[in-house]
Amino acid sequence: MEFGSDNNAGAAPAILDAVVACSAGPALSYGDDPLTHRVRDRIRTLFDAPGAEVFLVATGTAANALAIASFCPPWGAIYAHEGAHVEQDECGAPEFYTAGAKIRLVSGADGKMTPEELAARIRATGQGDVHSVQRGMLTLTNVTEAGSVYAPAEVAALAKVAKGFDLPVHLDGSRFANALVATGATPAEMTWKAGVDVLSFGGTKNGCLGVEAVVMFDPAPAWEFELRRKRGGHLFSKHRFLAAQMDAYLEGGLWLDLARQANDMATRLEQGLRSLPDVAHAHPRGANIQFVTMPRRAHARAMAAGAHYYLMPHGTPIEGDGDERLLCRLVTSWATTADEVDRFLACVRG
Amino acid sequence: MEFGSDNNAGAAPAILDAVVACSAGPALSYGDDPLTHRVRDRIRTLFDAPGAEVFLVATGTAANALAIASFCPPWGAIYAHEGAHVEQDECGAPEFYTAGAKIRLVSGADGKMTPEELAARIRATGQGDVHSVQRGMLTLTNVTEAGSVYAPAEVAALAKVAKGFDLPVHLDGSRFANALVATGATPAEMTWKAGVDVLSFGGTKNGCLGVEAVVMFDPAPAWEFELRRKRGGHLFSKHRFLAAQMDAYLEGGLWLDLARQANDMATRLEQGLRSLPDVAHAHPRGANIQFVTMPRRAHARAMAAGAHYYLMPHGTPIEGDGDERLLCRLVTSWATTADEVDRFLACVRG
Amino acid sequence: MEFGSDNNAGAAPAILDAVVACSAGPALSYGDDPLTHRVRDRIRTLFDAPGAEVFLVATGTAANALAIASFCPPWGAIYAHEGAHVEQDECGAPEFYTAGAKIRLVSGADGKMTPEELAARIRATGQGDVHSVQRGMLTLTNVTEAGSVYAPAEVAALAKVAKGFDLPVHLDGSRFANALVATGATPAEMTWKAGVDVLSFGGTKNGCLGVEAVVMFDPAPAWEFELRRKRGGHLFSKHRFLAAQMDAYLEGGLWLDLARQANDMATRLEQGLRSLPDVAHAHPRGANIQFVTMPRRAHARAMAAGAHYYLMPHGTPIEGDGDERLLCRLVTSWATTADEVDRFLACVRG
Amino acid sequence: MEFGSDNNAGAAPAILDAVVACSAGPALSYGDDPLTHRVRDRIRTLFDAPGAEVFLVATGTAANALAIASFCPPWGAIYAHEGAHVEQDECGAPEFYTAGAKIRLVSGADGKMTPEELAARIRATGQGDVHSVQRGMLTLTNVTEAGSVYAPAEVAALAKVAKGFDLPVHLDGSRFANALVATGATPAEMTWKAGVDVLSFGGTKNGCLGVEAVVMFDPAPAWEFELRRKRGGHLFSKHRFLAAQMDAYLEGGLWLDLARQANDMATRLEQGLRSLPDVAHAHPRGANIQFVTMPRRAHARAMAAGAHYYLMPHGTPIEGDGDERLLCRLVTSWATTADEVDRFLACVRG
Repeated sequence: MEFGSDNNAGAAPAILDAVVACSAGPALSYGDDPLTHRVRDRIRTLFDAPGAEVFLVATGTAANALAIASFCPPWGAIYAHEGAHVEQDECGAPEFYTAGAKIRLVSGADGKMTPEELAARIRATGQGDVHSVQRGMLTLTNVTEAGSVYAPAEVAALAKVAKGFDLPVHLDGSRFANALVATGATPAEMTWKAGVDVLSFGGTKNGCLGVEAVVMFDPAPAWEFELRRKRGGHLFSKHRFLAAQMDAYLEGGLWLDLARQANDMATRLEQGLRSLPDVAHAHPRGANIQFVTMPRRAHARAMAAGAHYYLMPHGTPIEGDGDERLLCRLVTSWATTADEVDRFLACVRG
Repeated sequence: MEFGSDNNAGAAPAILDAVVACSAGPALSYGDDPLTHRVRDRIRTLFDAPGAEVFLVATGTAANALAIASFCPPWGAIYAHEGAHVEQDECGAPEFYTAGAKIRLVSGADGKMTPEELAARIRATGQGDVHSVQRGMLTLTNVTEAGSVYAPAEVAALAKVAKGFDLPVHLDGSRFANALVATGATPAEMTWKAGVDVLSFGGTKNGCLGVEAVVMFDPAPAWEFELRRKRGGHLFSKHRFLAAQMDAYLEGGLWLDLARQANDMATRLEQGLRSLPDVAHAHPRGANIQFVTMPRRAHARAMAAGAHYYLMPHGTPIEGDGDERLLCRLVTSWATTADEVDRFLACVRG
Repeated sequence: MEFGSDNNAGAAPAILDAVVACSAGPALSYGDDPLTHRVRDRIRTLFDAPGAEVFLVATGTAANALAIASFCPPWGAIYAHEGAHVEQDECGAPEFYTAGAKIRLVSGADGKMTPEELAARIRATGQGDVHSVQRGMLTLTNVTEAGSVYAPAEVAALAKVAKGFDLPVHLDGSRFANALVATGATPAEMTWKAGVDVLSFGGTKNGCLGVEAVVMFDPAPAWEFELRRKRGGHLFSKHRFLAAQMDAYLEGGLWLDLARQANDMATRLEQGLRSLPDVAHAHPRGANIQFVTMPRRAHARAMAAGAHYYLMPHGTPIEGDGDERLLCRLVTSWATTADEVDRFLACVRG
Repeated sequence: MEFGSDNNAGAAPAILDAVVACSAGPALSYGDDPLTHRVRDRIRTLFDAPGAEVFLVATGTAANALAIASFCPPWGAIYAHEGAHVEQDECGAPEFYTAGAKIRLVSGADGKMTPEELAARIRATGQGDVHSVQRGMLTLTNVTEAGSVYAPAEVAALAKVAKGFDLPVHLDGSRFANALVATGATPAEMTWKAGVDVLSFGGTKNGCLGVEAVVMFDPAPAWEFELRRKRGGHLFSKHRFLAAQMDAYLEGGLWLDLARQANDMATRLEQGLRSLPDVAHAHPRGANIQFVTMPRRAHARAMAAGAHYYLMPHGTPIEGDGDERLLCRLVTSWATTADEVDRFLACVRG
């Protein structure tokens, strides 16, 4: 009963097979191998973006920080939701990679910005005033940290605001597949057709070992990106091991199948929880993450039975047996089974 | 006939097996899994250094830059050999991670510093003079970029110079196993017993997919290292996939077996080449890298037969068929076979 | 009728005299001259802080950024009021000098934090969690950007919160003299006795040409500060020209006399404005800055008569002649005269 | 008898007068005052460069580092002479401001690069190879740190090499006036006509209190420069005090008169020294700096008589009375008198 994080799941068998298979024989290093070239083309095709530049890195923080630094100068303001991973969970990686850009926070219910709030925050930045940081870029997250999902039209509305100020748009898609499955959008509809210039296209959380693609629909800073990747220590020597993961991930739509399993299990979990008294969802669920309040005694039962997940805020103690409602985050993954969900629901039900 | 780089080899079967095996079931992310704990302890034991701190990253550049930045302030001078990887091949990663430290170069034959040259360079830095960068740290490489190997006593002699100025010592050991096999030294003898404070302990080039351990014999900056690693985007979420590689690498001495194969094949290659007229070694060979001058026509024959390796400097064209001597670098790896070596020698022999 | 900024005033005659006088004859450069040594001692005495370290720079942004960078690591959170100069008006200087620290904003009425809000913000930072920036330092501003003044007890209450989390405390005192005159506090009471570790002690706005002292009551990072100052390009070669300003500024209490004039003129201005209908103060005035709403037609009259000051937000157009209330900022300085104030009041009165 | 540094001289009377005069009355801050506008135009006219952008800062290190950072990316190689101020005397300011660029050193006799050496160093940088820093920019110094002077044709020859690789060219002209007087070149001939893109135009060492102009003949990065200057803390609020210095410096050719005095005194000094046995010049003298070896006893006599200057390397002890030859640096300034020179020569003569 693992609901702690989709990072706690292993890798999907087909992806492991590909990693093993690609290892045979010599291959050029640092991304000059044929498999890397193939997977880069594959992503261009998948996104219907023949002019895009595609690069692989091993972590989501690297993908985000390198993507942002390639589009935002040191004196730029990065507009991000106040709960965004880049603000809360990357220990200052965007600031580090940009050499000191400033994240300006946009609030909004359920982890989502509204175009009005975004516009107000951008407008408040003193563009052309040398005393102020300058308007830099917009970064969105989809699936959001609150578990909600932006529809393509919502991404487009926010990107349109940014474009109105000539700002580039980044999408942190560490759970991009889950967002696509949730909305039925195509990769292109969720990204460049909606105004996204650069995407962190996640693989790790959805069944890979550790690989993310940075997809630059605006390829202008591509060479700069490569240099930043290298000096950031993110250019793999045995690059085929990144490429093999991504190649198998995309083969035959595996990535969407994996995300569908995660989302379906989240739906099953939500439906079960919604049928229970004293249990409530804190945000509308969009994909594979849900935030739920439950009585302390229900948590105690679930954890005693071996369920693993986190109370919010992190570090909230669980001991006790009262009726007090405690907020938790429940994440399903490609590896979650219906049986896990049902056993968990049984625990909560008591 | 792959002699281009040990980065061009795949991963050793036992290491791939471990990667596959570790994937089963859930595991805590970001290094809190049992396998990571085990491998960190294992490295402490291997180095006879119970107080050391051990961290895993995926690339050698990350290991070097994070290690250096944790010991050297932004205004520090990093003393490195003029041919060192940190100077020539990391696109400024040390400067980036340290926020602008300065590499001060030490020359020396065959890729090795002498204590005298090192001392002179350190002394020439204006310690205590606010106009000058300050003495920061020493970084050594073993196996060196010229293919030579420092004996433990040589490391100790250089570290002693650094310690005389109260400077910490880093060892870039991307080919640490090859250096140990070449010298017969123990891990402890080559590192902390010789005065090394922090080691980049390479796995990637010697049969792993992508893993390096940073071993901090001086653990004082360990927490700072962890924060730097995270904000550098180098903390793996599915960290077990790094740990599994390193665990299998060390299991049963595999790492030394792999390095021994690489070094033995280099010996076989060297012996064959030394028997040929018009072929000469540019530096004394220490481990699995050798620099050799051969007539252009010999290169042409080898490459026509499918041998892969690099002429020096990179980019030197091979076409032509004359007697001109061209310098090349030949690298063997855990995957090199005697047959490959012999076929190559036959080509060169003509 | 200059109420735009105390930066728009020239330098006080005695300070100009000192600059001219110090120029005679040779003097050691880079701060080794006797006048620099004297002024550093003088500041130690003034603050009753014999162990403090004192350094001079030419701008307030340099003083703030260097002071903050010397106490806060790159992964630190700097707690600042959302209106603070370091956040709004320094184009990211703290982020630049710290190599990417993150300013976490604290809200609060009239430009002032409350201890409760500050504590909540510090507590919300994930100390010990590698994914989060770490608690770094507190920076306060006195006089605040809203024109209010912290009493020493208020500074002490906020510093106590910071100290409860082991955080150092910086005070941006670009208008320190005005704050002292307003509160009657001694330099020591407003700083180290209240828990301040490092002060940006402003001279420029209060009658100097361009000089600020960084007073480190905690002198531990003093040498680091000196190196940061030098590599930031802020170590003056002809340092006596900074020292002479500061020396004359302190001589005979000139600095307090100058601030008293500025504050007295602000009082006169406030009293006049409060007697007028349709004029209101947006914040309680503490020293030499006041924010006032007045009818558009009153602004038009004042500006037509040659008054100079800024509408808020910057860039608000003034044309028109209606009753609409527009917010403005009125700043008095050491150079403001009673006549200027009275003429301005007459304009507003109409 | 001050020969320690031209930084040890005070400010020229006319410049002090201008500083005092500009202080009267209010003036817009941060460079929007009329005097600043006038002096910027004046510099454009002086250099016959109507399209140039001109900015003032207070220190030479700021001028150099900001100029370099505006033209060279973080992954760029900055080609500088091994004795250059940017390498030896700025505590890593270029590395700090560029966010980690790398200075690649060019050797050369008497502080001067040769085109051949420069070309070889540029060619050795792995342009287009992601593992290497990329060719970034050339920075020259005139007057050099060894006291020699590049003729305009020499600057042009070096700039031509850089331009052949599409690299921008910076000239550190902290002693630009001395170089012009020495060569008879016009400002334009020594800069943009010779291929210089950006100049640090020194005022401080030649009679100002503290002001340098950055003259961007290629104005493309001008706005970026302004933002870097602000976030570096180098935008003066009471900017008129910088402008007044520069304005008076240029008025009526004062700057050249001051430099002529410094150079003439250096000539007088050189002629006197060359007539003495046991005294030798280490480099050909170009302007107001000379490096001379003299017997220890001659130094002892001069210092006993109150002469002030530095032995090389800095920190060499003077005590003793033998015949040993010790190297010293002798710098004259606008304030040096013939009497000082003659008294010094008398001391040395013994």
